[in-house]
Amino acid sequence: MLSKTGSFQFHIESYVCDFTEKATLPVIGNFLLDAASIHAQERGFGFEQISKDNVAWVLSRLSIEIREYPGHDQYLTVETWVENVSRFFTQRCFCFINQENKVIGYARTIWAAIDIHSRRPVDILTWRPDLADYIVPESEKQCLIEKMSKIPPVENVEPTMGYTVRYSDIDINKHTNSVKYIEHIINTFDLSFFKEKFIQKFEMVYLAEGMFGDKVKLYKQQTAENEFIIDTKRGDESLCRSRIIWK
Amino acid sequence: MLSKTGSFQFHIESYVCDFTEKATLPVIGNFLLDAASIHAQERGFGFEQISKDNVAWVLSRLSIEIREYPGHDQYLTVETWVENVSRFFTQRCFCFINQENKVIGYARTIWAAIDIHSRRPVDILTWRPDLADYIVPESEKQCLIEKMSKIPPVENVEPTMGYTVRYSDIDINKHTNSVKYIEHIINTFDLSFFKEKFIQKFEMVYLAEGMFGDKVKLYKQQTAENEFIIDTKRGDESLCRSRIIWK
Repeated sequence: MLSKTGSFQFHIESYVCDFTEKATLPVIGNFLLDAASIHAQERGFGFEQISKDNVAWVLSRLSIEIREYPGHDQYLTVETWVENVSRFFTQRCFCFINQENKVIGYARTIWAAIDIHSRRPVDILTWRPDLADYIVPESEKQCLIEKMSKIPPVENVEPTMGYTVRYSDIDINKHTNSVKYIEHIINTFDLSFFKEKFIQKFEMVYLAEGMFGDKVKLYKQQTAENEFIIDTKRGDESLCRSRIIWK
Repeated sequence: MLSKTGSFQFHIESYVCDFTEKATLPVIGNFLLDAASIHAQERGFGFEQISKDNVAWVLSRLSIEIREYPGHDQYLTVETWVENVSRFFTQRCFCFINQENKVIGYARTIWAAIDIHSRRPVDILTWRPDLADYIVPESEKQCLIEKMSKIPPVENVEPTMGYTVRYSDIDINKHTNSVKYIEHIINTFDLSFFKEKFIQKFEMVYLAEGMFGDKVKLYKQQTAENEFIIDTKRGDESLCRSRIIWK
């Protein structure tokens, strides 16, 4: 049996950096998804393997905390492991390590398994009891990021920005990409934010699937000095809701 | 002296693929820019080195032809060399090679050197006569893509799409990214184009620099069965103009 924790290295190319010469949050989100995908594939429960059972993993919640963004031409190691498996959700953790071997952040994600046709959740414990073999309990490896808190809806606010879901929003899994939402969300901030601060914490709850051609609006509300909640809505329906904490 | 031609390998990660499980055109554009940047850096005329002279390379024209897009988890090799240096422009060529060692495409780019402060062109032959040492003449290595033709302006057409230049449009060089323009341009096409065809040829002329906050409109005109011209304009001024040929 393969080790329970997977470790994957990424190189920070110039084209994944912003004007501060650091990797962007969406890029770290892509690394995270890629690490999760390879880790699962190697252990027999990847995208292609479970599609034979007509099942797909769907990202339900995501929480990333980065204390120091990796810079251009550096290497970033992403460790990932399964922390918990319950009836309808699995919890996957991540640890980000820079090339000086320093832990620079953590992430926690919650995934549902859904039936591809009915789009209904699958009982994971019955469908794949073997997933439990890969659990690394908190007592063995700690993911030092708080459990995700509720993100309240944004109310009585005019939309800050709107966009239409287009080709570049659709990913290899043929639906709207969970990271592209983040790109649009952080695009609601002025360049001065990125000059003076960085996104220390980003939390996201995915509520509904966006489709090609959807007209989406972003509602932003400041909730504390460096804290914002942004609701991504199609009409009255939230597709996802996020909390951003700047430092 | 380093070899005149540089060769750089890229891995096609899942997050650079579209729903057809192939690398996208913007991604290949990023690989191309990255290869150019490392090639120049290694030979002493990279971004950081020439900024000491208050000079920057500015992409003026780009032409890419891809006969077969590399798929997920494959490797793509990008070869690049300088084909010509004249008073105000250098011409840099690219060859794309897949992991079966098959040439799958070519690209040709034209770069100006500008003074960072005055934004005026620098006489390259006087400033850096040593660049000529790296020229690989056409007789030695052929770039099998036609010389770029003129792209006429689009006239009497309503805008197809508009966007505001935001954080994700600004790159490590602190100005609007030449590849991000391509992402917006191809986003004007319906998903059915990407399902049934692929972009075989993409030509672009860069005419003015976009700035953060600019409100941009895209004007699209069909000029032949599988051919389109798209003008990216800020008010009446074209920022860039492109020709797309689908196959």
